[in-house]
Amino acid sequence: MADRLYLYDTTLRDGQQTQGVQFSTAEKARIAEALDALGLDYIEGGWPGANPTDSAFFDTAPATRATMTAFGMTKRAGRSAENDDVLAAVLNAGTPAVCLVGKTHDFHVTEALGITLDENLESIRASVAHCVARGREALFDAEHFFDGYTANPAYALQCLRAAHDAGARWVVLCDTNGGTLPDEIGRITAEVIAAGIPGDRLGIHTHDDTGTAVAGSLAAVMAGARQIQGTLNGLGERCGNANLTTLIPTLMLKAPYAARFETGISPEALHDLTRVSRMLDDILNRVPMRQAPYVGASAFAHKAGLHASAILKNPATYEHIDPALVGNARIIPMSNQAGQSNLRRRLAEAGLDVPRDHPALPAILEEIKAREDQGYSYDTAQASFELLARRALGEMPRFFEVKRYKVTVERRKNKYDRMVSLSEAVVVVKIGDEKMLSVSESMDEQGTDRGPVNALSKALAKDLGPYQRYIDDIRLVDFKVRITQGGTEAVTRVIIDSEDGAGRRWSTVGVSANIVDASFEALLDAVMWKLVRDGAPPA
Amino acid sequence: MADRLYLYDTTLRDGQQTQGVQFSTAEKARIAEALDALGLDYIEGGWPGANPTDSAFFDTAPATRATMTAFGMTKRAGRSAENDDVLAAVLNAGTPAVCLVGKTHDFHVTEALGITLDENLESIRASVAHCVARGREALFDAEHFFDGYTANPAYALQCLRAAHDAGARWVVLCDTNGGTLPDEIGRITAEVIAAGIPGDRLGIHTHDDTGTAVAGSLAAVMAGARQIQGTLNGLGERCGNANLTTLIPTLMLKAPYAARFETGISPEALHDLTRVSRMLDDILNRVPMRQAPYVGASAFAHKAGLHASAILKNPATYEHIDPALVGNARIIPMSNQAGQSNLRRRLAEAGLDVPRDHPALPAILEEIKAREDQGYSYDTAQASFELLARRALGEMPRFFEVKRYKVTVERRKNKYDRMVSLSEAVVVVKIGDEKMLSVSESMDEQGTDRGPVNALSKALAKDLGPYQRYIDDIRLVDFKVRITQGGTEAVTRVIIDSEDGAGRRWSTVGVSANIVDASFEALLDAVMWKLVRDGAPPA
Repeated sequence: MADRLYLYDTTLRDGQQTQGVQFSTAEKARIAEALDALGLDYIEGGWPGANPTDSAFFDTAPATRATMTAFGMTKRAGRSAENDDVLAAVLNAGTPAVCLVGKTHDFHVTEALGITLDENLESIRASVAHCVARGREALFDAEHFFDGYTANPAYALQCLRAAHDAGARWVVLCDTNGGTLPDEIGRITAEVIAAGIPGDRLGIHTHDDTGTAVAGSLAAVMAGARQIQGTLNGLGERCGNANLTTLIPTLMLKAPYAARFETGISPEALHDLTRVSRMLDDILNRVPMRQAPYVGASAFAHKAGLHASAILKNPATYEHIDPALVGNARIIPMSNQAGQSNLRRRLAEAGLDVPRDHPALPAILEEIKAREDQGYSYDTAQASFELLARRALGEMPRFFEVKRYKVTVERRKNKYDRMVSLSEAVVVVKIGDEKMLSVSESMDEQGTDRGPVNALSKALAKDLGPYQRYIDDIRLVDFKVRITQGGTEAVTRVIIDSEDGAGRRWSTVGVSANIVDASFEALLDAVMWKLVRDGAPPA
Repeated sequence: MADRLYLYDTTLRDGQQTQGVQFSTAEKARIAEALDALGLDYIEGGWPGANPTDSAFFDTAPATRATMTAFGMTKRAGRSAENDDVLAAVLNAGTPAVCLVGKTHDFHVTEALGITLDENLESIRASVAHCVARGREALFDAEHFFDGYTANPAYALQCLRAAHDAGARWVVLCDTNGGTLPDEIGRITAEVIAAGIPGDRLGIHTHDDTGTAVAGSLAAVMAGARQIQGTLNGLGERCGNANLTTLIPTLMLKAPYAARFETGISPEALHDLTRVSRMLDDILNRVPMRQAPYVGASAFAHKAGLHASAILKNPATYEHIDPALVGNARIIPMSNQAGQSNLRRRLAEAGLDVPRDHPALPAILEEIKAREDQGYSYDTAQASFELLARRALGEMPRFFEVKRYKVTVERRKNKYDRMVSLSEAVVVVKIGDEKMLSVSESMDEQGTDRGPVNALSKALAKDLGPYQRYIDDIRLVDFKVRITQGGTEAVTRVIIDSEDGAGRRWSTVGVSANIVDASFEALLDAVMWKLVRDGAPPA
């Protein structure tokens, strides 16, 4: 009979403590939905009242199967739980669960809070009891627990007992400073259980300051803890939290965890892990960490010659799990035979059946390599990859040609003496022998200037003669910009995601030192791909 | 009496298996010198004979205090060690130590090598004996040892004994596929020692495929192993090797390792760790990982408001070690989670001493929160934060005003019938009562169009009258673009890093739906900050 392990995600709260990370309310909702689809048990949405984004998130939070949790802190000393406005804001978020952080390290009680040890115990007890009385599932985050236990075990345990006895569903042992090594976490967790807090009421919350947050969480589970707190991609304060993207597959696939434990995540949902991890990086506009365990692009890349040739005989020789289980894929450098068969598979997916020895195959591989060296990225921009291959194979129809474009961005005072900006674009295309000029500006319905790329996009799609009906339903749904080389040699990569009325979504890429030009290249590819896919006739 | 731990660096060999990493011979020499200065015991330089770079490196390798080691593999079956050309190339590198990888997993012997178990034992024995007879220190890398031991412990141990009895100074237990968890590594290492291979002849070599390479190495040390193999910054095949940049400070600074063990690294050399880690990223042209334990830019960044205020009272409250010990520094970034004390500290750093109860403090925090909600990010853009605060405090001199600007991007055929693009910008500023117009275009010396932001930047800095001399030495060193909300509601955030002749570097931010406008805002802040800092007089 497998023990149930509960997974508690704090990407939206502790993950937001990552330097440079600032989620919008809409992004928080998108991430919450992805976490819920994955099957996490708890989603900590933020700290209601601490900032406008978190408050707005709880006002409009998506309905989830996972237990939505609001984070806050135990009441301040010298006032009742009922009269603590910070605690009130947390409860007012109306979530089924509430997680309150509180002190358990005597030094922090007297040094940081400046109150007596007994006052702190009473704050913990009263705050947890208050949440429980309001019908909420209460969690107590025992801040600095491992340091506190090392300094004063009796007091640290008293704090846990205060929360537990007041009705906390979970008492979470937090290694707040991230300095406790796995052996120590395992030993102390076992001692807490021996002291009377049952393991199935204990959680673990680690940070990666010594690069052992995942191992520390595993050690706590082995010692008996049954809730694990962490974040997607290991986001979090300083070096980050325990990485759930790593822990989830280990718990589900690796001995001895897979046999002894059960999580709320199904094997089917696990197939989605790589996609969810990349989606988060996408929202953050970060380059995904290639070397990330399980989900990184390099996690199953076999560069060593000895490894690559053995892998072709039997993947188990150099892979600890099957990459498909987590939705990832094996990579064998394009230079060898495996590179070509991989390419043929991708072309087939695009409807291009190319025989094994087609002379264009090595040429396509070469061109991809050369262009990726310049900053292009064909892994993400599959539609641009398809167009590149079609050109090399001589299977790209000639629809129209862009002769020139011009875009102007102007910022000046309007008649009400307010600074306003406006962009205007002119695009000239030639279809057959006919030349067509289109002009558009960048103002949207709300009167906001959406910038030069918006104006160009509208001008390009405004008058394409016989092709107009094919492109009328294209909608630009995302636009990502990345500088691929620092400093003055910077080159801009633009990735554009488009969607059409049939719900198809495709990505294209453009690269240039000029950001507008890179955008235009990606826009043009987006239009061309749609014409190819819809079978538009050549001009 | 502390036990000696030996550190073995394989950045130049296993680190080169990282996807996208390809060191030149000169880069290898530079890294070897840095490793040597740090105090590593062994430097594995590569596989002589396997590729031209590695062979050239050994021909010209720098003289090191560390034991320079050549990597290779045990002789092939069916020929003598003396007649194996691969082994000969390794020995011909003339290094004092040689590390040979060999099989210990029965499945790999029969499946990948296709030889008998006895033939493999003889290859190990003869190869090690051959190196020892030539006066070399011999190491045996026991490939797939943990998987092999789990499948067939008797045979795996026989392989280790063959190497050990033939005179190998070290027998290294390799978790080649990276799938073994720390508990298992600890248990098996202890069993190997119990079976008669002494711990001071045992090494550990782990990979990070489950995110536990560091913890696995620590577990092996606790079980008795005395050599640790790893790489700087955790480079390496797939998810990378055990990260020495993380392991070194843990072994030197953290209980129980610091008290029980000694390494070859001095506390003074440890101060250089952050610099060496960044140098490697520099060579690889990679953005250093902010969240890296100990050496990352975020490793001691305290973003949470509660943490930041406690840190100001006593750094030990939220830091597990003093960042100066590893040559890193504390950062208290601005963010919407920061409290007033954090704010006052940031202001003090900018030379603005603001009393505790100044009425502008809550207003500044409110404005930061509101603007971060719109997409601004002040924890990275500290110069823009300072300008915002100065405006709120009434301490921002009035230098000049931008009345309007206009920028044009045009793409058309040139006289040679090639598509070329060009941007042109006009900026109009008012200084006192004087209006000045400047125009610039975006072509650089190589004839590359660097786009509209470049043109705007040049036009803005072209004619600022009395302020010209203050800004002449500003150089734009980095330009980062991020879309903060997806879809049509996209808002662009631009972060610009600038540098001046005195070597100062500062970051500014701009946000707008119009990417050019967002860039201009950040550019303008960069100029304003320089004028403030250099004490330029108001107009």
